[in-house]
Amino acid sequence: MTKTYPGNFFEDFTLGQTLPHGTPRTLTEGDSSLYVALTGSRYPLHCSRPTAQSLGLQGQTIDDLLAFHIAFGKTVTDVSFNALANLGYADVRFVKPVFPGDTLRSESKVIGLKENSSGKNGNVYVRSTSYNQRGDEVLTWARWVMVHKRDPGAPAPEAQTPTLPDHVDVANLPIPPGLDTSDYDTAVTGSPHLWDDYQPGERIDHINGMTVDESDHTLATRLYQNNARLHFEEHMMKSSRFGRRLMYGGHVISICRALTFNGLANAIGIAAINSGAHSNPAFAGDTFYAYSEILDRLELPGRTDLGALRVRTVGVKNMESEKITSAKVEKDGKMRYHENVVLDLDYTVLIPRRR
Amino acid sequence: MTKTYPGNFFEDFTLGQTLPHGTPRTLTEGDSSLYVALTGSRYPLHCSRPTAQSLGLQGQTIDDLLAFHIAFGKTVTDVSFNALANLGYADVRFVKPVFPGDTLRSESKVIGLKENSSGKNGNVYVRSTSYNQRGDEVLTWARWVMVHKRDPGAPAPEAQTPTLPDHVDVANLPIPPGLDTSDYDTAVTGSPHLWDDYQPGERIDHINGMTVDESDHTLATRLYQNNARLHFEEHMMKSSRFGRRLMYGGHVISICRALTFNGLANAIGIAAINSGAHSNPAFAGDTFYAYSEILDRLELPGRTDLGALRVRTVGVKNMESEKITSAKVEKDGKMRYHENVVLDLDYTVLIPRRR
Amino acid sequence: MTKTYPGNFFEDFTLGQTLPHGTPRTLTEGDSSLYVALTGSRYPLHCSRPTAQSLGLQGQTIDDLLAFHIAFGKTVTDVSFNALANLGYADVRFVKPVFPGDTLRSESKVIGLKENSSGKNGNVYVRSTSYNQRGDEVLTWARWVMVHKRDPGAPAPEAQTPTLPDHVDVANLPIPPGLDTSDYDTAVTGSPHLWDDYQPGERIDHINGMTVDESDHTLATRLYQNNARLHFEEHMMKSSRFGRRLMYGGHVISICRALTFNGLANAIGIAAINSGAHSNPAFAGDTFYAYSEILDRLELPGRTDLGALRVRTVGVKNMESEKITSAKVEKDGKMRYHENVVLDLDYTVLIPRRR
Repeated sequence: MTKTYPGNFFEDFTLGQTLPHGTPRTLTEGDSSLYVALTGSRYPLHCSRPTAQSLGLQGQTIDDLLAFHIAFGKTVTDVSFNALANLGYADVRFVKPVFPGDTLRSESKVIGLKENSSGKNGNVYVRSTSYNQRGDEVLTWARWVMVHKRDPGAPAPEAQTPTLPDHVDVANLPIPPGLDTSDYDTAVTGSPHLWDDYQPGERIDHINGMTVDESDHTLATRLYQNNARLHFEEHMMKSSRFGRRLMYGGHVISICRALTFNGLANAIGIAAINSGAHSNPAFAGDTFYAYSEILDRLELPGRTDLGALRVRTVGVKNMESEKITSAKVEKDGKMRYHENVVLDLDYTVLIPRRR
Repeated sequence: MTKTYPGNFFEDFTLGQTLPHGTPRTLTEGDSSLYVALTGSRYPLHCSRPTAQSLGLQGQTIDDLLAFHIAFGKTVTDVSFNALANLGYADVRFVKPVFPGDTLRSESKVIGLKENSSGKNGNVYVRSTSYNQRGDEVLTWARWVMVHKRDPGAPAPEAQTPTLPDHVDVANLPIPPGLDTSDYDTAVTGSPHLWDDYQPGERIDHINGMTVDESDHTLATRLYQNNARLHFEEHMMKSSRFGRRLMYGGHVISICRALTFNGLANAIGIAAINSGAHSNPAFAGDTFYAYSEILDRLELPGRTDLGALRVRTVGVKNMESEKITSAKVEKDGKMRYHENVVLDLDYTVLIPRRR
Repeated sequence: MTKTYPGNFFEDFTLGQTLPHGTPRTLTEGDSSLYVALTGSRYPLHCSRPTAQSLGLQGQTIDDLLAFHIAFGKTVTDVSFNALANLGYADVRFVKPVFPGDTLRSESKVIGLKENSSGKNGNVYVRSTSYNQRGDEVLTWARWVMVHKRDPGAPAPEAQTPTLPDHVDVANLPIPPGLDTSDYDTAVTGSPHLWDDYQPGERIDHINGMTVDESDHTLATRLYQNNARLHFEEHMMKSSRFGRRLMYGGHVISICRALTFNGLANAIGIAAINSGAHSNPAFAGDTFYAYSEILDRLELPGRTDLGALRVRTVGVKNMESEKITSAKVEKDGKMRYHENVVLDLDYTVLIPRRR
């Protein structure tokens, strides 16, 4: 019996199956420092203890996306080690903040299966949840991936695709317990813009860009203990259709979120990701830019200190975001992503209101 | 109204103006680890708790230059986002040590303005100060930068240039409270040379060199949350006169300080930077070497355990430092920096005396 | 008198000499985070506090190899700064676990000297030991290096080579105090294989690979404060026979240990390294793969919860490990290492037994 774990193939998944994932991970201030070094992020809840405490939290929190990537990384071995493509995310909720010292473990449940017409692979839908050391749910998300079959002759399971919300409803948006922004001081970010100032339909080009090199994205992806081979093995990827290592899409999300600081500096936390698409592959050497559209401005039930914005952030490679008027362009009669667009992310942020 | 912040242009500055800078930052042991990984620094006050405690401090301190780069990084958005050149530093004083857990915020005051003859830009002089979470001043420095005008037709302000000391006087040299090197043991560095052993005029070639790659300098500069675009955007810099990303000059200072360990190992802390010039640009792939000249040996008032050395460290790229006899060479009748010299730093270090 | 330290040459060593090494180092959670980012390691004792505590330890430990590289790095200045080659290791014992907050200092004793027939260099054998802040021995190892003579005319010392064990006997294998794996749950790694499941002679190909870039190995080696010039100076190395920087062999060990997780996930700690050879040089851009052979399955005296496996891990560059049937191949009538084999490591790991 071989001791190595080849990951699950399409026919290994069954509807309703629970997959507990290995390697719980304690997050520390060291992870936070690295995350700043990898992304340049400046959101104050994650890098300033006094700021976090003045807003009712026990201390600075682990960046929402850092926690997500680590929680997500644990699922790769069992869910997407043999994936051809990461097809989408839905209903990602940042249920509770993660603090340095907390330990995350993740678990997934198979919520849908559908063999593709080729018979060579199929789509697997999972609901993944991450828990801290007290057993509290801290993160939950749905995603679906296209996974190879081990044996093309294996019979197809009954097709079943889950119903997933196209966005997280305002009633389900998690808010960190204790967070109170009644006395929020915009001096902490240097930006005057609060919830009240953003208008649905408004577009923001974030000006700054960021080039990502091989060591940057591989350090990030190793930090997340994500072991998907295509990010790490130049030798193997040379003979792939990309000809080289592919950047973990989550790192692109992190870079774009960091870039949005210039224009959305007071969007102090991410409450939910409604949907996301990695519309084109990203590689070392690419320079990323981003623009955002305000999709909605949401009042939070019972809160006058804090509101939410539903934001669409579009990540663009090797081209200033101002040059992209629309993420999708018509081609052969179809709307397709512009070839420089690498990310189309619909998410909801928390932002203080003007008093 | 646009939500992105384009930074200040020359005509946005007024004499006496105070600029509070955003994003306070809590420094942690994670930052210290990264700093060691980025520089290879071995100075013991910053990496050994028992050593720091045996010398009267509460624990290991954040490296002086790491604290400086983070404090400095906060000023970039408001002071030098639209700078063409960082012209100089003066009167940099490391007022109080920074410990893991301390939070820094920075503030600048405009102390001089002078439009250049081209009418397209001008020099801005600022005095920047960084404070910890208790409001104690921990770092203060003057610098001047050449900043673009937004509108070349904007009227020139009355020219005013500040008087700045050419070096920090011994009476103003900060010494960490509690530091007592009476029982200093040279075994902690493995080097026998103390204050008494250095002679003004003496030159030290530091032997070791360090190649810096793209991810190294960008990780460092992101860690400092310095968002100057020219360090990060390969796409933008391709069309600049450099043709590529420029290394943050502060990283060159850090690399050279780390190299000086071999020859100045017992120079346990930096008290002041008297002046500094980034004499040539530095790029990824460059290998840095350094030599130092002892400019002065200073007794500290009331101290027999500790003295100071005023040191000039010259950073050299892609050439062993021994091959440089003088940082400046005559060219067309003028003394100019040798084309391989990237740094000329005049600073004052603290070093135990022989008992 | 020059202040720089040129390191020791062959004639500077004398039998029985003790070399205390400089720069004690406090290890922190920041170092652990970086180690994960540099290697992708997932062994749970080092990254999960609850797991470590559930097995009787006070908290997560510093990765065995991270501690080793830092302890080892301190010896470079005095032992191998002028080395041509690192010839071998023996009797490496991980005597006590290292926890975040512990401070290591190292010391070496010269245990053998033998001038080579060329008269230009000689082999130096040292026994190095690293101590924590309480003076407890935490690591000990023997190694031998080939060191240049300063003066080829210097007389040869009497040749003396130490007797070193070819492996660490089971009676001498250190076990972390308090470690009790009676209630070990394989869910922490996701792998079901325990001590009982491995058979001497069994081979495991670890599937995953890892490409290492320049910033990866230089960040690691700087983190260890290892100042051997050949890892860092592209300028100098361009004219060497390698034409470029050489990767620190210890980083190759770390990468291979991280890769073995897939197949040896429950090998939660390294008790000893019996011997090791860096059989071919490794460079940035290389992709590493690994396979392991189980050399022996060892009962630990008085323990039914925990056993040991003696493992040979072979590191392979730029070729899937499955393609290597034997680390050595016949060439010109001699058995030599396959040109893609970069590491041949014989070590002993601790692994829970089935109850």
